[in-house]
Amino acid sequence: MTSLHVVILAAGQGSRMKSALPKVLHRIAGKPMLHHVMDTARKLGAAGIHGVIGHGAEAVKAITPAADVQWALQQQQLGTGHAVAQALPALPDDARVLILYGDVPLTRPETLEALVEQVSEDSLGLLTVTLENPDGYGRILRDEAGKVTAIVEQKDATEQQKAITEVNTGILAVSARHLKDWLPQLSNSNAQGEYYLTDIIAMAADRGMAISVAQPANEYEVQGVNNRLQLAELERWYQRQQANRLMTEGATLADPARIDVRGNLTIGEDVLIDINAVFEGNVALADNVSIGPNCVIRDATIGAGSRIEANSVVDGTTIGSGAQVGPFARLRPGTRLADSTKVGNFVETKKAEVGEGSKINHLSYVGDAILGRNVNVGAGTITCNYDGVNKYQTVLGDGVFVGSNTSLVAPVSLADNVTVGAGSTITRDVATGELAVARGRQRNIDNWERPVKKD
Amino acid sequence: MTSLHVVILAAGQGSRMKSALPKVLHRIAGKPMLHHVMDTARKLGAAGIHGVIGHGAEAVKAITPAADVQWALQQQQLGTGHAVAQALPALPDDARVLILYGDVPLTRPETLEALVEQVSEDSLGLLTVTLENPDGYGRILRDEAGKVTAIVEQKDATEQQKAITEVNTGILAVSARHLKDWLPQLSNSNAQGEYYLTDIIAMAADRGMAISVAQPANEYEVQGVNNRLQLAELERWYQRQQANRLMTEGATLADPARIDVRGNLTIGEDVLIDINAVFEGNVALADNVSIGPNCVIRDATIGAGSRIEANSVVDGTTIGSGAQVGPFARLRPGTRLADSTKVGNFVETKKAEVGEGSKINHLSYVGDAILGRNVNVGAGTITCNYDGVNKYQTVLGDGVFVGSNTSLVAPVSLADNVTVGAGSTITRDVATGELAVARGRQRNIDNWERPVKKD
Amino acid sequence: MTSLHVVILAAGQGSRMKSALPKVLHRIAGKPMLHHVMDTARKLGAAGIHGVIGHGAEAVKAITPAADVQWALQQQQLGTGHAVAQALPALPDDARVLILYGDVPLTRPETLEALVEQVSEDSLGLLTVTLENPDGYGRILRDEAGKVTAIVEQKDATEQQKAITEVNTGILAVSARHLKDWLPQLSNSNAQGEYYLTDIIAMAADRGMAISVAQPANEYEVQGVNNRLQLAELERWYQRQQANRLMTEGATLADPARIDVRGNLTIGEDVLIDINAVFEGNVALADNVSIGPNCVIRDATIGAGSRIEANSVVDGTTIGSGAQVGPFARLRPGTRLADSTKVGNFVETKKAEVGEGSKINHLSYVGDAILGRNVNVGAGTITCNYDGVNKYQTVLGDGVFVGSNTSLVAPVSLADNVTVGAGSTITRDVATGELAVARGRQRNIDNWERPVKKD
Repeated sequence: MTSLHVVILAAGQGSRMKSALPKVLHRIAGKPMLHHVMDTARKLGAAGIHGVIGHGAEAVKAITPAADVQWALQQQQLGTGHAVAQALPALPDDARVLILYGDVPLTRPETLEALVEQVSEDSLGLLTVTLENPDGYGRILRDEAGKVTAIVEQKDATEQQKAITEVNTGILAVSARHLKDWLPQLSNSNAQGEYYLTDIIAMAADRGMAISVAQPANEYEVQGVNNRLQLAELERWYQRQQANRLMTEGATLADPARIDVRGNLTIGEDVLIDINAVFEGNVALADNVSIGPNCVIRDATIGAGSRIEANSVVDGTTIGSGAQVGPFARLRPGTRLADSTKVGNFVETKKAEVGEGSKINHLSYVGDAILGRNVNVGAGTITCNYDGVNKYQTVLGDGVFVGSNTSLVAPVSLADNVTVGAGSTITRDVATGELAVARGRQRNIDNWERPVKKD
Repeated sequence: MTSLHVVILAAGQGSRMKSALPKVLHRIAGKPMLHHVMDTARKLGAAGIHGVIGHGAEAVKAITPAADVQWALQQQQLGTGHAVAQALPALPDDARVLILYGDVPLTRPETLEALVEQVSEDSLGLLTVTLENPDGYGRILRDEAGKVTAIVEQKDATEQQKAITEVNTGILAVSARHLKDWLPQLSNSNAQGEYYLTDIIAMAADRGMAISVAQPANEYEVQGVNNRLQLAELERWYQRQQANRLMTEGATLADPARIDVRGNLTIGEDVLIDINAVFEGNVALADNVSIGPNCVIRDATIGAGSRIEANSVVDGTTIGSGAQVGPFARLRPGTRLADSTKVGNFVETKKAEVGEGSKINHLSYVGDAILGRNVNVGAGTITCNYDGVNKYQTVLGDGVFVGSNTSLVAPVSLADNVTVGAGSTITRDVATGELAVARGRQRNIDNWERPVKKD
Repeated sequence: MTSLHVVILAAGQGSRMKSALPKVLHRIAGKPMLHHVMDTARKLGAAGIHGVIGHGAEAVKAITPAADVQWALQQQQLGTGHAVAQALPALPDDARVLILYGDVPLTRPETLEALVEQVSEDSLGLLTVTLENPDGYGRILRDEAGKVTAIVEQKDATEQQKAITEVNTGILAVSARHLKDWLPQLSNSNAQGEYYLTDIIAMAADRGMAISVAQPANEYEVQGVNNRLQLAELERWYQRQQANRLMTEGATLADPARIDVRGNLTIGEDVLIDINAVFEGNVALADNVSIGPNCVIRDATIGAGSRIEANSVVDGTTIGSGAQVGPFARLRPGTRLADSTKVGNFVETKKAEVGEGSKINHLSYVGDAILGRNVNVGAGTITCNYDGVNKYQTVLGDGVFVGSNTSLVAPVSLADNVTVGAGSTITRDVATGELAVARGRQRNIDNWERPVKKD
């Protein structure tokens, strides 16, 4: 009995979310809760992942491009036992089965490993948690030897039992063989008329099986989400864990309560992250990178010693070492900044390769462009890359100096060491070392009468 | 005795605020504390609202354009009883009177309704609160039957009385007839030489009246503000309530501790609000709107599915559905964006109507302008709407394509499907389908000697 | 025995910081922890400050340009007693000596003064703190009269002693004479093989000296930093103290948990600071200044009633009264804005003097420039101050009106009341009252065929 199959219950509507979206698709750290649980299953090395879906089943499947997931449809929501039963046909008889919930997104794999290890022919694993306030949860009953004997629901509990603070999380691990034996025996003779998975614990105890217990390190690991306040609470706990992880790895955070990591953030040594940074997708920061206040960094690789100044947005970008970006820079996908480059305030780049030592310091749009080394792009320069239907490329050679307020009408190519006079609209290629100017001649007109105020 | 009159004490200076402003004009969520209290009175359906003012009376009146408020001037601050007495002449004999405080801004109407209901010829209502640390407050004494018998001040309390944690909030409701009877009987024979409103409780008890008690749901409801730390504490509680309200209504908040609502924010379904949003004035967000990090949204209506990207400022603007704004957009009053429009980074709009499907993607200023449908405004385009004294309008027809770095010197009108060449300064109208160009011819000059470094 | 010498232990590596930087150079509020401690020593009026350095000694010295600091090198880290011994030769015999730690950065001078006052020939001062959880710290043993008799380390403590919550902070004050007597007598016969400074307490007790105790007002004052989580914790406590200080002085903070002061911030009356402000260096805000959300203000003086709007970055700038800056303004060093000036969105200034009433409202770069009074700089104006190697100045007289999208090619001078037509590139000086225009003539071309989509 070695292969692990994980059944994830994800059929609920979540009406308290007040949402058109099925509950399990609501996101923590930018990722649907259900996908968190699936990723956890993968970390556990699951041989099979079984998603039991119902409400919004098509939406769930559409957003989950997971080749390793088998879906089971629960047409009617008749209880957790009924839900697991939908996945039974797909479970090999000799599998260990772990039951997880699509709305309990943050259980650590380590916690679940301890549970799965308990599973044998004579034993199942139950995840319990000790709560300061156990109100409303099923209490764990133990005999004098400490062995779990049953779970008693709140409404059935005696006063003495209500004082028990160890409660059932609903997460359990059991052999497929036992599940196939027991689930058909569940009864729905209860107030809700539902088939409860929890009832298999009593069956197991009746049959003399050992019920082994594991507990999470933190109760947030087993907290479910029924409304958006709980969603936000888990989001914040997740983010605080990320902050602690980054600090432990050697980043200085100006404020661990003001950082959001929605994806994978890897860091080098002595990284400095100022307030309100938001990281999305895959971001890698090398040694001594500093991120200024209020930056959004998405899918980016930033080289050693580079600085992203305040209020910048970086997306789909690769940055070399010793670069300086911002404040107020906006780097869009396809931007590649070489070492020692500089992109300053109110500058937008897109599909732009910028060579070593080159600078775009102010108020420019550089898109669909290749810049050589030591290029200086003056303030107000625009690459006119779009004619309304097609996009064209601008190529600037090494050492090109573009004067301010220049329009570069692509396709256009400026060879090495070209100089462009300020205020020019460049429509033709320029050869190495040439000066290109394209502007009107200045006329100074005296006796100029200024406009007068109209009403 | 049906009509309710609310007396609001607002005469204090608030020296610990260290401010030139009268205390009650300090703001919570952008609104003076006094106005919060007045709005509460209105929600209670008050027939009369009486503001007792003293310090900074003129400033208070000037900032309170409230036709339904009657002012009473308290020339000298001789205590709360004296303050209420100033409003007595304006109170009808048969009114129920609720006493509130201009520096206790956040009492919920529901809490006060429960209080006002207690008022009759034989009964008054007293708002008390149970505090973990009651130090300094007047304790509520009750007899064995639980009936309130008196309030004992901290300095007069026995050790046993000091252990009482139920304290007086100062907020009470009583018939005008009783007030008119009792207030003249108040004595100022106390350490402060002041007339205390609280003393009427003893008078009522002496006369065998029932003193009915109500309590707030949260102690912040009765917290007064004496310094800016307390102001900030109430601000944060207020904002947390707003965050909870939004989440309950179905918004996802990235961080409930990082949102500020200063005015009225209404939301549709599945609204997503990222970190550090600030909402001011009247803002309505339709279904599926998303607000990116670090945005300021003031007096705006945003249609379904529209996205405001990071670091944008939106003010006095109406946005249709499916629009995309920002990052780094700045929409100023009078901006109206139709459906499926796009306003990108480093773009400012003002009094600008933008037709369906039109785009202003980069580095532009569009003011006093009317844009048709499917207009494309190139990067660096400026509407020159101001001649130093007058403002003029720019009109762009459907399908106009404006090349980059163009200046549109208003008044100017470009008919449908006009194309403007990059770098042009357009001063004259252009007819349907024409191409307008206004720029110097490009000259490429070889043997150009670059400037050399001086000194 | 009047002169005070402060010995600061700063030789540790701090391996749990995971850093290339010596631990004491990690920063709180932008300043290395060691410098915080040195500044505290200066506030105490220390006649001598002695830094004991080891790991990264050169880096520590390089970043500490402190003429009043004497360095002592601890080649091997053999314990706190050994560390202090390195400074002994430099301590005058009749000095009082205060031992501080470079990684305990936030002890208040007032707390230490109380300690130093205890020092005499017969008495030393020991700083202790009472912790809710004293685990791991040396407990303070007192006799029945309350006199301190010894410090017992965690591992040597009886169960009864472990219940003691008063612990040793390591900070102490003692005469140099005693130090010179006792330090050579320290033994390293302990598990770590180190010489512990703490052992002098037992020596003092043995000799019948009085051990006088002082305690900090807050335990963060004596919290050391061993990893970046602790660094962040102290950072947040420091910032919360700053927030409280500002509110007490009369500033309204939108959120005391979202402000960072990294340097010296002085404020006038009724200053309003919105969320996420970051202040660095020396900043002075006069009466009624308001700072919008998400601003970074560094080394700036801002005059009465001026407003800095959202998402602005101000650095090395002096601003007069009644000015309006931002949103999205970026003022760089050398900017001087006179009264009633206005710098708007997407505007960058650098070394720019802007006269009273002048406006740069949109999308401009103004660098190396002098602007007179009532100048209006149109949107998209660029001062072309750089030819690739040299920087030149632009001078605009009073009342100059610069049309939009203008390039001013420096060096260039526009006399009073000059008007520049939109879209011009100005390369020559313009005389008083003249109109300067430099642009191509507009041509409207009919039958224009728009580009077609290529694939």
